[in-house]
Amino acid sequence: MSTAWKSRYAQRTKEIKSSAIRELLKLTQKPEMISFAGGLPAPDVFPLDRFQEACRRVLELNGHQALQYGASEGYEPLREMIARHIARYGIKAKAENVLITSGSQQALDLIGKLLINPGDRVLVEAPTYLGALQAFDVYGAEYVSVPCDEDGLCTELLEDRLRCGPKFMYVLPNFQNPGGTTLSEGRRHQLVLLADQYGIPIIEDDPYGQLRYEGEHLPPLVLLDRENLRRDEGYSIGNVIYLSTFSKTLAPGLRLGWIVAPPDVIAKFVQLKQGADLHTSTFTQVIAYEVAKDGFLDEHVKLIRKVYRERRDVMLEALKQYFPAEATWTHPKGGLFLWVTLPEGMNAKTLFEAALKENVAFVPGDSFYAKNGFAEDGSRHMRLNFSYGQPDQIREGIRRLGAAVKQQLQERRLVAR
Amino acid sequence: MSTAWKSRYAQRTKEIKSSAIRELLKLTQKPEMISFAGGLPAPDVFPLDRFQEACRRVLELNGHQALQYGASEGYEPLREMIARHIARYGIKAKAENVLITSGSQQALDLIGKLLINPGDRVLVEAPTYLGALQAFDVYGAEYVSVPCDEDGLCTELLEDRLRCGPKFMYVLPNFQNPGGTTLSEGRRHQLVLLADQYGIPIIEDDPYGQLRYEGEHLPPLVLLDRENLRRDEGYSIGNVIYLSTFSKTLAPGLRLGWIVAPPDVIAKFVQLKQGADLHTSTFTQVIAYEVAKDGFLDEHVKLIRKVYRERRDVMLEALKQYFPAEATWTHPKGGLFLWVTLPEGMNAKTLFEAALKENVAFVPGDSFYAKNGFAEDGSRHMRLNFSYGQPDQIREGIRRLGAAVKQQLQERRLVAR
Repeated sequence: MSTAWKSRYAQRTKEIKSSAIRELLKLTQKPEMISFAGGLPAPDVFPLDRFQEACRRVLELNGHQALQYGASEGYEPLREMIARHIARYGIKAKAENVLITSGSQQALDLIGKLLINPGDRVLVEAPTYLGALQAFDVYGAEYVSVPCDEDGLCTELLEDRLRCGPKFMYVLPNFQNPGGTTLSEGRRHQLVLLADQYGIPIIEDDPYGQLRYEGEHLPPLVLLDRENLRRDEGYSIGNVIYLSTFSKTLAPGLRLGWIVAPPDVIAKFVQLKQGADLHTSTFTQVIAYEVAKDGFLDEHVKLIRKVYRERRDVMLEALKQYFPAEATWTHPKGGLFLWVTLPEGMNAKTLFEAALKENVAFVPGDSFYAKNGFAEDGSRHMRLNFSYGQPDQIREGIRRLGAAVKQQLQERRLVAR
Repeated sequence: MSTAWKSRYAQRTKEIKSSAIRELLKLTQKPEMISFAGGLPAPDVFPLDRFQEACRRVLELNGHQALQYGASEGYEPLREMIARHIARYGIKAKAENVLITSGSQQALDLIGKLLINPGDRVLVEAPTYLGALQAFDVYGAEYVSVPCDEDGLCTELLEDRLRCGPKFMYVLPNFQNPGGTTLSEGRRHQLVLLADQYGIPIIEDDPYGQLRYEGEHLPPLVLLDRENLRRDEGYSIGNVIYLSTFSKTLAPGLRLGWIVAPPDVIAKFVQLKQGADLHTSTFTQVIAYEVAKDGFLDEHVKLIRKVYRERRDVMLEALKQYFPAEATWTHPKGGLFLWVTLPEGMNAKTLFEAALKENVAFVPGDSFYAKNGFAEDGSRHMRLNFSYGQPDQIREGIRRLGAAVKQQLQERRLVAR
């Protein structure tokens, strides 16, 4: 009798709601639906031939290792590859600074496990990544939110919030999900300076950093970290834990992410990971290494940039053409998403229902705000994904969506008259 | 500065120690070492050709889905296959009763997350699976232990322990890790009867159930569950949550396990899984389905049974030949492990150090006892794995180990004289 279980659920699960995004994804799987709701990479750029070759080689030459239990830390050659890769951005790291996780989502879960006591405050951006809120909620996190504008988190409002004594800050500096915004270089310096002054460490989540379509790469926070400048240990990781993933550059179905942190923090994560899933699939790790190696991933990322840049431009163009002048949107310099602000008085959830009838979907903005985060609510916002659809579908979807916006705007005016 | 992080670790991580087994595994990777310490399947029975063919087909026909994000519940055809498979043992289940997890270890973590409030008592066998203790520890579990003998958990001692009001019971009825013992049919009936009387639900962990080398398959607890007999909902899952895995039948490197539970409990696990890792690797799920389908897994399990039965018999024979008469050991009817009780006065940890010098390794028994579990300690016990080594290595390893035991016994006698 499952009520026997229900009466035994732990306190921490009482508040856990199913992810709005994932429930929506189920609604939007009809073939006639044009969905801007998911955060899905374009499957047409998955390097299938390279995967074929990698699987063939791995099973032929290294099958016994690839299918066996492995170390909780991850597959050594993959950890070394990641350390070499991030060194290009100036982050001094070795394999011992890298823990392979089952997607970035597991990194967020392990961070919650390691750091959050019930009632602890976590400083987040408003809006922020919904999956992080889900991961931290389970551990009883409370939130302090800092608004974002086109230049990312508003650091001039940060000091006030830091006085609330958050346990750590969770920040997505590049092409943020959902905002599509990028933290400016000036604000990056301000952020690490304030983090140092107030002694509040930073989680830097960077799933999209490589997918930049215009402008110059900006230094990651982990590199600017003041603590580094005082240290001379061969590592440039101190007050910042850095996260990234293969989900947006190789394939999300592998579920491969990583944490970059000082070795003693990695050791603690490893202990928690042993209890969580022993280790991430050896098979996907070895395959990912085999696919990515010898510079293939760099070349492949160039292709992804080209494809996504085009889709972003198609979406921006279509928004200009089909949306009313009163709506505004971000101009993301990379990543997968842009963020629309609807005309005053409109509601994104009401629009969502109308849009579904026209077979077009998006995620209403309020999902991306922490509860009790003292920030504006997201009722006028929507997140649009531009990586998944073909250019023609993007144009057609934005046309339908624009029509729905204009109609609701029209109806509101009639009522107001 | 990583002390910035250390001072912020959550309360729950204070007591978490690294897994003794996994730390040992690192020590025992020298090529000259014969290790009975791990729980590793024999890599020589991995069906590499079948994996080759599966990878080729999946990437050719279904690559876009296999590399994309998937549902948190798991890959639908795999869930259906598992439901069909367990139906053979009389468990009425549909895909909606099955959640795919990132190995059985993640199932244990999700169970801890869903059910354990800090201070809750969990009833476990003494000895029990170390990984379960690691998973539950993080959520602040306390333990009530029930001793095991050759017929598994001593149900005649159970009622007394149930009066402590444990939140749930965690039981491994088949070829238990580490004991190698199997819960007798009579005790299975007693166990579910008492569970029903006291209203304490059961987690039935069954990673090895299919690997039986002698005797008849015994009915799983989930089937005997009293609650079932009262229900007529088309499911035979009520008071028992059932766990299993592909780690011992296909390959542990895939990290694929599953939970069988009532649909509303599955729904709760799905919510927690979204925050934990979104979903298990689509790629490994699709590959596992492709490898296992059309009856291949059944045939393959027959091969594994044949190979492991032979290795078990070699180990039992060698123990008889090389160990002193005062030592005893279990006679496992299946699974991967047997459990040795050393002569009185001997200590398995002292033996462990001597054994390592002779290049042979095992896991000392006390790792497998819950702390504060009111049970005997495991100082005289050791767990031996017989699935990994070749027969010749097993014989040689037991010879070395037997010599070390005899020498320590000799030394003790000299001291005692």
